[in-house]
Amino acid sequence: MPRHTVVAFDVELNALHRIIAGMGSLAEEQLASAVEALSVQDEERASAVVARDVEIDQAEQEVEAKVIRLLALRQPMARDLREVISAMKVANNVERIGDFAGNIAKRTTALREHAPAGPMKSVLRMAKLAGDMVHDVVGAYVAQDLDKALSVRDRDAEVDALYTSLFRELLTYMMESSQHITPCTHLLFVAKNIERIGDHATNIAETVCFLVQGRVPDEERAKEDMSSFTVMRPPGAEEQEPS
Amino acid sequence: MPRHTVVAFDVELNALHRIIAGMGSLAEEQLASAVEALSVQDEERASAVVARDVEIDQAEQEVEAKVIRLLALRQPMARDLREVISAMKVANNVERIGDFAGNIAKRTTALREHAPAGPMKSVLRMAKLAGDMVHDVVGAYVAQDLDKALSVRDRDAEVDALYTSLFRELLTYMMESSQHITPCTHLLFVAKNIERIGDHATNIAETVCFLVQGRVPDEERAKEDMSSFTVMRPPGAEEQEPS
Repeated sequence: MPRHTVVAFDVELNALHRIIAGMGSLAEEQLASAVEALSVQDEERASAVVARDVEIDQAEQEVEAKVIRLLALRQPMARDLREVISAMKVANNVERIGDFAGNIAKRTTALREHAPAGPMKSVLRMAKLAGDMVHDVVGAYVAQDLDKALSVRDRDAEVDALYTSLFRELLTYMMESSQHITPCTHLLFVAKNIERIGDHATNIAETVCFLVQGRVPDEERAKEDMSSFTVMRPPGAEEQEPS
Repeated sequence: MPRHTVVAFDVELNALHRIIAGMGSLAEEQLASAVEALSVQDEERASAVVARDVEIDQAEQEVEAKVIRLLALRQPMARDLREVISAMKVANNVERIGDFAGNIAKRTTALREHAPAGPMKSVLRMAKLAGDMVHDVVGAYVAQDLDKALSVRDRDAEVDALYTSLFRELLTYMMESSQHITPCTHLLFVAKNIERIGDHATNIAETVCFLVQGRVPDEERAKEDMSSFTVMRPPGAEEQEPS
C-alpha cells in the first residue's frame, strides 16, 4: 500500500481497538454490577445493567460497520486482513459477554427470597474470576500479547471446575428444601452464564493467537465443566435402583 | 471486476453456500438425534451426536478460511462483500447450533432416571419447532428469500413462550418430589439450549435481511422468554412472607 494508505489504515485500526477496549471495560463493569445487584437484591442497579447493555450492542454494530468499510476501502492483505477479521470476532464475543451480564441482572427480582448465602458467595467468586479473564484478555488483544492471552485461556478450567462444584452444591440445597428450588434454579442459570463468559473470554484468547501467529492454538483445551453428567440423589435415596 | 473474476467469485460463493447448507442439514439432524437419544435414553446415539459435532466445527473453519481467502484475492465490494461477511456469520451461528445439540446429547446419561414424561414431551415439541426454524432459515439463506427469513424470525416467539411455560412446569415437578430435582434440572438446561437454538436461527434470519436489504430489520423483536422473572412457590407456601 502507498504510505498515506498505510497510515490511514493504522488510524482506523487504532479506532477499532479503542472501541473494543471500551466495550471490554464496560462488559467487565456490567458483570461486576450484575452480580453485586443480584447478591444484595438491588433492583435499581439491576435495571441499570439491563439498560446499559444497548451501549455494548451499539459499539459492536459500530465495529462491524467500520470493518466492512475498511475491507471495502483498504482491501487489506495478510496480517492486516487478520487484524480486521479479528476485530469483528472479538467485538462479537464481548457483545455476548455483555448479554450474559444483562441476563444475570434480570434474575435479581426472582432471587428476592431465600437465596442461600453459600452458593451466592461461590457465584461472586466465579464472577470475579470470569471478570478478570475478560479484563486480561481484552488487554491482551489490544497489546497483542500472546502469552497473556494463553494464560487467560488456561484459567478457564478454573471457572469450569467452580461451575461443576456449584452445580452439585445447588442441587443439594434444592433437595434439602423445596423453598430453595426457585432461587437455586435461577442461581444455576447465573452460574451457567458466568461459565459461558469464561468460554467467550477463551474465544477471544484464541482469536489473539490467530492474530499474532496466524493460527489458533493446537492442543485441545481441557474441559472441566462436568455438570452435564452430574446426578445427585435426595438424602436416603442412595440405595434405590433407578426404575 | 473483469468477467473471469466475476465467474470465479460466483463459483467460490456457491462453494460457501454448499458448505453452509450441509452444515445446516447436519445441525438440524444432530438436534433431532440428540432429543431422540435423550427421550429414550439411547446413550450410544447420544455419543454419536457428540462425536459428529467436530464435522460442523471443521466446516465452520473451512468457511472461515475460504472467506479470508476470498477477501484477500477477490477484494469484493458492496453486495459481494456483504455476501462474504454473511457467510462467516451464518456459519458461526450454525456452529453454535451444533454445539447446543451436542450439549443436549451429553445430558442423556444424567437423565437415565425419573425423567417425567410430560416435560419430556414439551422438550420434544420445542426441539421440533427449533429444528424446523433451522431448516427453513438455512434454506432462506441459500435462496436469499427475505420473506422466508422474516417468517422464521417471527416464529422464535413461539419457542420462547414454550420455554417459559416449560420452566414453570419443571419447577412444579421439582417441588413435588426431590427425586425429580436432578432430571428436571438437566431438562431445564436442555430446554434453555433449544431456546438458544431458536435465537441463533433468528440471528441467521437477520443476517439474511442484512444480505438482501443491506440492513437488519428495524423493529425490535418481541421477547417472549419470561423465565428469568419466574418465581414458583412450593405448595402450601403461598401465604408465607419471604423472610
